[in-house]
Amino acid sequence: MDLPLEGITVLEFSQYLSGPSAGLRLADLGARVIKIERPVHGEAGRKLSIKNLWVDDSSLLFHTINRNKESFAADLKNPDDLALVKQLIAKADVLIHNFRPGVMQKIGLDYDAASEINPGLVYAEITGYGKEGPWKEKPGQDLLMQSLTGLTFTTGNATNGPVPFGISIADILCGAQLVQGIIAALIRRSKKKTGALIEVSLMETLLDFQFELLTTYYNSQQQPLRSKTNSGHTLLGAPYGVYKAADGFIALAMMDIAVLAETVECAALQGFTTSQAFAQRDNIKSILADHLHKNTVKHWLQKLQERGLWAMEVLDWEKMTTHDAYRALQMEQVLHAAGKEIITTRCPIRINGQRLVSGKPAPKVGEHNEMLIREMNEVIVNKK
Amino acid sequence: MDLPLEGITVLEFSQYLSGPSAGLRLADLGARVIKIERPVHGEAGRKLSIKNLWVDDSSLLFHTINRNKESFAADLKNPDDLALVKQLIAKADVLIHNFRPGVMQKIGLDYDAASEINPGLVYAEITGYGKEGPWKEKPGQDLLMQSLTGLTFTTGNATNGPVPFGISIADILCGAQLVQGIIAALIRRSKKKTGALIEVSLMETLLDFQFELLTTYYNSQQQPLRSKTNSGHTLLGAPYGVYKAADGFIALAMMDIAVLAETVECAALQGFTTSQAFAQRDNIKSILADHLHKNTVKHWLQKLQERGLWAMEVLDWEKMTTHDAYRALQMEQVLHAAGKEIITTRCPIRINGQRLVSGKPAPKVGEHNEMLIREMNEVIVNKK
Repeated sequence: MDLPLEGITVLEFSQYLSGPSAGLRLADLGARVIKIERPVHGEAGRKLSIKNLWVDDSSLLFHTINRNKESFAADLKNPDDLALVKQLIAKADVLIHNFRPGVMQKIGLDYDAASEINPGLVYAEITGYGKEGPWKEKPGQDLLMQSLTGLTFTTGNATNGPVPFGISIADILCGAQLVQGIIAALIRRSKKKTGALIEVSLMETLLDFQFELLTTYYNSQQQPLRSKTNSGHTLLGAPYGVYKAADGFIALAMMDIAVLAETVECAALQGFTTSQAFAQRDNIKSILADHLHKNTVKHWLQKLQERGLWAMEVLDWEKMTTHDAYRALQMEQVLHAAGKEIITTRCPIRINGQRLVSGKPAPKVGEHNEMLIREMNEVIVNKK
Repeated sequence: MDLPLEGITVLEFSQYLSGPSAGLRLADLGARVIKIERPVHGEAGRKLSIKNLWVDDSSLLFHTINRNKESFAADLKNPDDLALVKQLIAKADVLIHNFRPGVMQKIGLDYDAASEINPGLVYAEITGYGKEGPWKEKPGQDLLMQSLTGLTFTTGNATNGPVPFGISIADILCGAQLVQGIIAALIRRSKKKTGALIEVSLMETLLDFQFELLTTYYNSQQQPLRSKTNSGHTLLGAPYGVYKAADGFIALAMMDIAVLAETVECAALQGFTTSQAFAQRDNIKSILADHLHKNTVKHWLQKLQERGLWAMEVLDWEKMTTHDAYRALQMEQVLHAAGKEIITTRCPIRINGQRLVSGKPAPKVGEHNEMLIREMNEVIVNKK
């Protein structure tokens, strides 16, 4: 299949997660993504390991995020290297970076400089907090961004204090926003031949992510309140949340309280109606929690699902990955790197029924310097 | 400014959050987005209110997600209406739907049928679980998807049981994936004149979201473990997490344990090193929690930030929205609907330094039927 971004070249001056996750998705969709890395050590993310899992000199985590990319090693303070990088910029369609404000300017590769080299370039940058404001020099780190934007008060129970999401939500969402901006700018370029500067910050990303909650707050001036127990969503009434059964947990989405009471045969819940689902949320949830822990997941799900109510089991990774529903998705793919087989996930987007996979592992630092320099020379020879 | 997707027309057969959030971002980026809704009541999301906040017949929530769109009311079971919708499809660039598998087929508007009307159409669909597998008929609802994919075990403390994210993470991320697939397909179409079927499911989206955790699980067969207290990220060692100070909370990202011990003058922590940050995580976090609650947020942040350590305060919405750093972003915009001013957030992407705002409120059901029918007739007249 022709992948949709075939023929597009992306230079990725990025480290850790937000920028590289944008590069990963562009690569998944068919772009040629070249990491520009400092010589020898490469980008800092190569040394970020989890559970001490390594593939080669670089961590499993790095390989996961940087599959299907090339690497060009360059010391941007060395004029010869910088000249080569500028040649790459002249031929590229997209440049991504997630340096702090000012870093690319100091190197002489800020948007103005880069678009002089290549006026059609789509130049995309991620910052923590934008380029103005009192926090612009602060570290743009995922947990800190969650904490600053109110996000930690959306999750957990009212008595828990702030509860961060256990996944790097700001980084991942910001990468996705950047990709949307980049590809949209490429569409405009195909019609109007104009480049673009695309900017996204982690902070604006997390504000956008909370647009329902923030709009509610702006227009009511009331802070969203978490429920006392069995939290689900600050703005939704009972029973929305997760409940403990005798042998596991079940999740209950939106449903009519009276129908629920009848379906699970909960006498204490009879008399409550859906119009009380928000005002009596803590009360209803607590009655329900006391009732549901008395029987098994299977028992409750059978009753609830027979009635057409929105309830499912809560699974951990082991239960999920051995379930037929998971297997049917064929979400796993194998990368071959340094003589090892790495199992990882694939791109979640399917095109014309095809799953987007790529067995190409992450590159070694500078693995593609020779090839890229040869390509540049060929272009020069062809021009002569 | 020319928005990048100007000239692109999107038909949105969607309800609630996932599909409409994709339509919203496409509209933010300049596309003309037309909601196709059943007459009178419109899409189901119009009646989904939070805190009983309404703008007109439709909820504040609906207005938040559907700003900057048009509405064409059509009864898809009525042949005359269906014929009009097919005329719209013939002229459109993109069609989005998030119906359950089979629904669009029954109406005669599945991908094969739609691409016969318009071979260049980019047809994009969201499902809960894909179109195969034992769960394909199950409700594709956000909390249920979080529960089924292991996500609820990433957040909160080890003793908490499963903790769902308090934001509709599957819906929002899935919308973003869909937009990436759609715009990429539009780029291919601009070169090769081919349409495309783009499919994303909520479940595949949440698996992709957990790609770091799942890759670790696939390759180690160990379930990620949350810390006993002060949770932050299952795969990261101490001190990563949120801590209670005397008068509020602070977030600590990755940092050297010995430097931290010295900086906050914590005698009990001396002797620990970063190499123990994961193995001794519960122990280090508990010592630190005992120590940090003894003094104020300001006290600790001054010490930590002076030393260059990655620490910030935890803010709620009130504190955040009154902070200069928030104001500098200018993240709010005003919509005028039904004689009211609605404050909401804007698109987080900036293009050539400009923030993308649009004061156009969500449409009433069928508000644009007359205009769209007139446009269709003009096209026919022009052709004659």
